[in-house]
Amino acid sequence: MNTAVPRPRTVAAKSSAAPRTQLSPEAWIDAATAVLVDRGIDHVRVDVLAGGLGVTRGSFYWHFRDREDLLRRVLAAWRERATEQLTARLAQAHDDPREQLADASTLPFRGRAATRAARIELAIRAWARRDAMAREAVDAADAARIGYHERLFAALGFAAGEAHARAFALYGYEVAESLLHRQGSAEQRAARRRFVLALLQQPLARC
Amino acid sequence: MNTAVPRPRTVAAKSSAAPRTQLSPEAWIDAATAVLVDRGIDHVRVDVLAGGLGVTRGSFYWHFRDREDLLRRVLAAWRERATEQLTARLAQAHDDPREQLADASTLPFRGRAATRAARIELAIRAWARRDAMAREAVDAADAARIGYHERLFAALGFAAGEAHARAFALYGYEVAESLLHRQGSAEQRAARRRFVLALLQQPLARC
Repeated sequence: MNTAVPRPRTVAAKSSAAPRTQLSPEAWIDAATAVLVDRGIDHVRVDVLAGGLGVTRGSFYWHFRDREDLLRRVLAAWRERATEQLTARLAQAHDDPREQLADASTLPFRGRAATRAARIELAIRAWARRDAMAREAVDAADAARIGYHERLFAALGFAAGEAHARAFALYGYEVAESLLHRQGSAEQRAARRRFVLALLQQPLARC
Repeated sequence: MNTAVPRPRTVAAKSSAAPRTQLSPEAWIDAATAVLVDRGIDHVRVDVLAGGLGVTRGSFYWHFRDREDLLRRVLAAWRERATEQLTARLAQAHDDPREQLADASTLPFRGRAATRAARIELAIRAWARRDAMAREAVDAADAARIGYHERLFAALGFAAGEAHARAFALYGYEVAESLLHRQGSAEQRAARRRFVLALLQQPLARC
């Protein structure tokens, strides 16, 4: 497996080169993410990935300085897909903050995409318990998502402190729903989503 | 390491026996839980644990049929400590359901004990994504805890459907808070706990 030989740092190899060595960085990042989810971070190793992808270890170093570099880009890709693109899409779909909140509350229910996202997220959270780089990425993602919800509640007229508490509660509900999706019937899940969404938009009674 | 020799199936060995071979089953369960949290389920192996505990592999089989048997008892011990004893303690501390709900909402904030419990729980949830036995244990724990909250909301007079939604929301908040405990300042954490607790006990406005 340790047959890394110096090769030109190019992806667009000539037709004489074996096509399987022309993997994009994204292919390595996707493979690393899949191994992370299925087997945990300790199994995300260059030799394991190269074996799974059917390429030499050497071709890894065309795109990445080392394993650490790959892991950093796994986290960056997750952040991009699961936070930045996601909140941008929610924000563009509706002008009305209430509609955006309703949309956000349905995220845990979006079938296989939601299940896959939840599996990735749980694997990254487990990794983050033991690794400072992963922990920073998770903290930044959570902060960005809570911030997005917070701006929506602020747009509805809630004061800063309350907007934060409401945002945390709704985002926390989404996290919990994606973690606890096997609890209750489909009907109960739909009902509790509507309930949480409605309750979190009503004023707090002062009594 | 493979020096397993037949020995009597007894824990209370005579004084002539090496004291380090007299481990209780709980010592193995605790060691397995620690390795699960620190390194993940794949590292929970009899040889790893025996090495860490400074005993032979053979002594493992005094207490456990096999690795599967150990893992089942790791889950049983977690269930006992983190669900049964916990809810019994909450229920015994106060008669008033409101006080019990308030107590439950503070669970994620109980210092090192809460941090340790959260780490164990996250490791077990990550394992449960890949293992049916762990998944059943997690589902049973979540169902029992939601059920406990549900009985408290029912005692406050909420109808069954609403008691479930409120219970899920409060338990979900606790899960989220233990997962996202680095989000916000200490003041914000205290404020959002009070807010969620108060909001979840007020009626839903029909408008």
